[in-house]
Amino acid sequence: MIIIIQCRDQVGLVADISGILAAAQLNIISMREHVDKAENRFFMRLEVDGVSDEVLLEAQMRQVLPSGAVIQVNPVPDKKVVVMVTKEYHCLADILIRNNFNTLGAQVLCVIGNHDVLQKICERFAVPFFLIPYHEDKEVSEREIIAKIRSYDPDYVVLAKFMRILSPAFVANFPNKVINIHHSFLPAFAGANPYKKAFERGVKLIGATAHFVTDDLDEGPIIAQQIIPVNHSFTVADMVKSGQEIETAVLAKALRLVLNDRVFVYRNKTVVFE
Amino acid sequence: MIIIIQCRDQVGLVADISGILAAAQLNIISMREHVDKAENRFFMRLEVDGVSDEVLLEAQMRQVLPSGAVIQVNPVPDKKVVVMVTKEYHCLADILIRNNFNTLGAQVLCVIGNHDVLQKICERFAVPFFLIPYHEDKEVSEREIIAKIRSYDPDYVVLAKFMRILSPAFVANFPNKVINIHHSFLPAFAGANPYKKAFERGVKLIGATAHFVTDDLDEGPIIAQQIIPVNHSFTVADMVKSGQEIETAVLAKALRLVLNDRVFVYRNKTVVFE
Amino acid sequence: MIIIIQCRDQVGLVADISGILAAAQLNIISMREHVDKAENRFFMRLEVDGVSDEVLLEAQMRQVLPSGAVIQVNPVPDKKVVVMVTKEYHCLADILIRNNFNTLGAQVLCVIGNHDVLQKICERFAVPFFLIPYHEDKEVSEREIIAKIRSYDPDYVVLAKFMRILSPAFVANFPNKVINIHHSFLPAFAGANPYKKAFERGVKLIGATAHFVTDDLDEGPIIAQQIIPVNHSFTVADMVKSGQEIETAVLAKALRLVLNDRVFVYRNKTVVFE
Amino acid sequence: MIIIIQCRDQVGLVADISGILAAAQLNIISMREHVDKAENRFFMRLEVDGVSDEVLLEAQMRQVLPSGAVIQVNPVPDKKVVVMVTKEYHCLADILIRNNFNTLGAQVLCVIGNHDVLQKICERFAVPFFLIPYHEDKEVSEREIIAKIRSYDPDYVVLAKFMRILSPAFVANFPNKVINIHHSFLPAFAGANPYKKAFERGVKLIGATAHFVTDDLDEGPIIAQQIIPVNHSFTVADMVKSGQEIETAVLAKALRLVLNDRVFVYRNKTVVFE
Repeated sequence: MIIIIQCRDQVGLVADISGILAAAQLNIISMREHVDKAENRFFMRLEVDGVSDEVLLEAQMRQVLPSGAVIQVNPVPDKKVVVMVTKEYHCLADILIRNNFNTLGAQVLCVIGNHDVLQKICERFAVPFFLIPYHEDKEVSEREIIAKIRSYDPDYVVLAKFMRILSPAFVANFPNKVINIHHSFLPAFAGANPYKKAFERGVKLIGATAHFVTDDLDEGPIIAQQIIPVNHSFTVADMVKSGQEIETAVLAKALRLVLNDRVFVYRNKTVVFE
Repeated sequence: MIIIIQCRDQVGLVADISGILAAAQLNIISMREHVDKAENRFFMRLEVDGVSDEVLLEAQMRQVLPSGAVIQVNPVPDKKVVVMVTKEYHCLADILIRNNFNTLGAQVLCVIGNHDVLQKICERFAVPFFLIPYHEDKEVSEREIIAKIRSYDPDYVVLAKFMRILSPAFVANFPNKVINIHHSFLPAFAGANPYKKAFERGVKLIGATAHFVTDDLDEGPIIAQQIIPVNHSFTVADMVKSGQEIETAVLAKALRLVLNDRVFVYRNKTVVFE
Repeated sequence: MIIIIQCRDQVGLVADISGILAAAQLNIISMREHVDKAENRFFMRLEVDGVSDEVLLEAQMRQVLPSGAVIQVNPVPDKKVVVMVTKEYHCLADILIRNNFNTLGAQVLCVIGNHDVLQKICERFAVPFFLIPYHEDKEVSEREIIAKIRSYDPDYVVLAKFMRILSPAFVANFPNKVINIHHSFLPAFAGANPYKKAFERGVKLIGATAHFVTDDLDEGPIIAQQIIPVNHSFTVADMVKSGQEIETAVLAKALRLVLNDRVFVYRNKTVVFE
Repeated sequence: MIIIIQCRDQVGLVADISGILAAAQLNIISMREHVDKAENRFFMRLEVDGVSDEVLLEAQMRQVLPSGAVIQVNPVPDKKVVVMVTKEYHCLADILIRNNFNTLGAQVLCVIGNHDVLQKICERFAVPFFLIPYHEDKEVSEREIIAKIRSYDPDYVVLAKFMRILSPAFVANFPNKVINIHHSFLPAFAGANPYKKAFERGVKLIGATAHFVTDDLDEGPIIAQQIIPVNHSFTVADMVKSGQEIETAVLAKALRLVLNDRVFVYRNKTVVFE
């Protein structure tokens, strides 16, 4: 069993929680905890051996934990995701492969694209693809996308190189549920054309950032980041190509962490128990 | 306060330990635990806020923990080390600098060298240097070194590129106390001339390994490892030079971990709470 | 145009070669050279702008270069590969994806498996899959595989987690043409079960190695290597899972380098112009 | 011999240069070249075996190269540096150690500090230390520093965690000669308190950047960059501490590259032949 707790910090939390588990004869295999002292916030992830009544366990926890505590006993075991794409295949293909071999940690319900370039690869894997191109009136398109997503009711929406900026109104529909891969080492080169900016600045490393999407473009809580070295011989096109490899790797890592319930969000930061 | 526990695993350990801390009004800032299921072994490192009677706390713990448990409340706060060297300066110099600015996490009591090359740098930092060259009869030299170390009674002996092989008899005097930096990514290229072997094999990465020294040469519990890329243009001399940079970094990291009581040894492995 | 040269070293080689190019009004965009002084061997890779008669250029080069020189002007532009697999999907899937989107740098002609687990994924990409299980008499199976490969006449044979040991007789059929991904940081943990051995040794890094296959198992020229950190919390299964990610990445990198004519083999080493 | 060339690009440059070397019976050991096509700029670094008249060689080169070419045959073999510091010891100590063992690739002439904290460590290494505190009138202090530097006439001025912002007027005195280590992965977190900003943003990697100093603060040509992972458990103080390790490593790398004549500056970028 996996148990997730987030609440106000106070003395004795670990004793209270582990006491309940010991009484239920549940052996702790793995315990990760973090206290954000500035925010006075307590985060815990437990893996325990043994079987117990989930509802009872949660009720017992709620009695000893501060009011407002987030407690999840075995949070959503069979997660579902909707993926949004534009034209680049690398992140989507990686997700489809893992989905195909049941190693993604979630089921891909469908893929939504604003171009049809990636329809064929979805068909190869028998995953529904929906083409929703952008109208001049962005709001209309977004309403259509929202409706499509809602019809599938996913746990997460994954932007796998979706190259349109989603409006705050869109994001508000799926709080802490939209995960994006940004093709730079944020906060460097936020916004459009990060590789071009990186080239012009003459940096020696380029990166990728997976983050939750909030109202502020490229400003949401960061889940994972990675970099690779570049040098003077790299053109912008070379950077794009090399960057795609780490974009794929970083998004894969972020999804593995989120889908294994290893990521907590609080304010604009994440606590990640790798 | 820092609390270190290693014992046989059983249900309820975390509850028992955290219960004692809560009763003493000690707030857990950081809790790291690991269970080695194959060995049925429990490892824990705690950082707690607040003050309490160390002896009483340890006694309370001992009452609830399995017999034979290793419990340390505030383990040796002011650690002391003796450093052994041959001719290469890089690891020693790094240690002397940190020692000089009180950021090593220990005090360097003295340096023992089997050559006098590094005497001058020790004098610059007013650290005693003892030249103990190797006689034909290795046993005589080792007896002299052992006597010198014993006279200083250090917590750890650090082999900072000491290029002679210590006999099992020597090592038996300081069990789990001798830390070595080996200039390869063990177990690859164990023994002498690892960079030459790496060059001949045409590897694309070279490494360094910090480990506790046991009877079996280069076979002791590994604390930290790191690598750097090399390529066809590297001569053996280039590998040695690049290797020195990571040897310095890996030994520094291993010492930081050990001297902060973040490394547990069990059988031939380490548990490291970074 | 790409020009590849490998020959005995002598004074004036660069002047001779670049003189021919200048006379043909070919501008050098990128020039990489390496001299192995111990072996007195010269390696060069050129990218030049402009068009010229390939046969004439090669003939001119041959006149000034030492006898026995390997000279390739625009080496095999449309390369072809045969992939061999067992049960693990990760490396194969990555190759099939890149093949599908024409970013592999070669065409996958067919896949040969000694199990049928990966037949389905090949079918999804319309790539022929041939099941050739191992008989008790290994020689019979290998003869069948050799015949199948020969019928496709590929430039390279890629062992994408093919888990049977190929005999020297097999390898002799395709000298410097068989590329393997080994699931360890060679030469550490050569042979079977490297992750189990890595777990038992308690290493803090695990790796993967892509290399050309020679008679000596796991001893061929290394093309690329990479590592990732592990720690005490990793089981053997965790190491296998993490290892698969770098196996995929390292094989992809090795293929990119080889298929772009950036890898030279001489004796048991490679020169790689990244 | 080392030969450095930077000039306008044109067809036949390599043939012309290597022809001169061949005629002088100089064997090319290592040749690195780069053409910046956007800027139509040619960069080359050669290592050659054999002895020749430096002045004659340069004159021969100048005859065939485009006007305005930068040509250096054996550029400044015994380089000299002045180091500027504030209070943090890590970068300075690393430089002093390498200077002491003659592995820096330059001689440290003196150290200038705006605080006296690091006077003692300089004295340990018998390197002159000058305390030049900042007056209210920054210009006065800078004039004093400029005079001191001029009196030593160094090849480079190294800002080893010098925590005051130098005016454009100051920088104009030493164009392409002032090297700074910035404690962030530029362009992220330019300006003051980068670790605090990194903490607040919740990044998962922190970095350091070595660069030439120009008028625009933190905007000069980048020489080297590196990063290390951080996570939610890092306080700002932890980031500072971890950051110091890579600041030291990045500055050491940048100095090694610059002092070995491996770094070319053009406009706001560097070409680095590692």
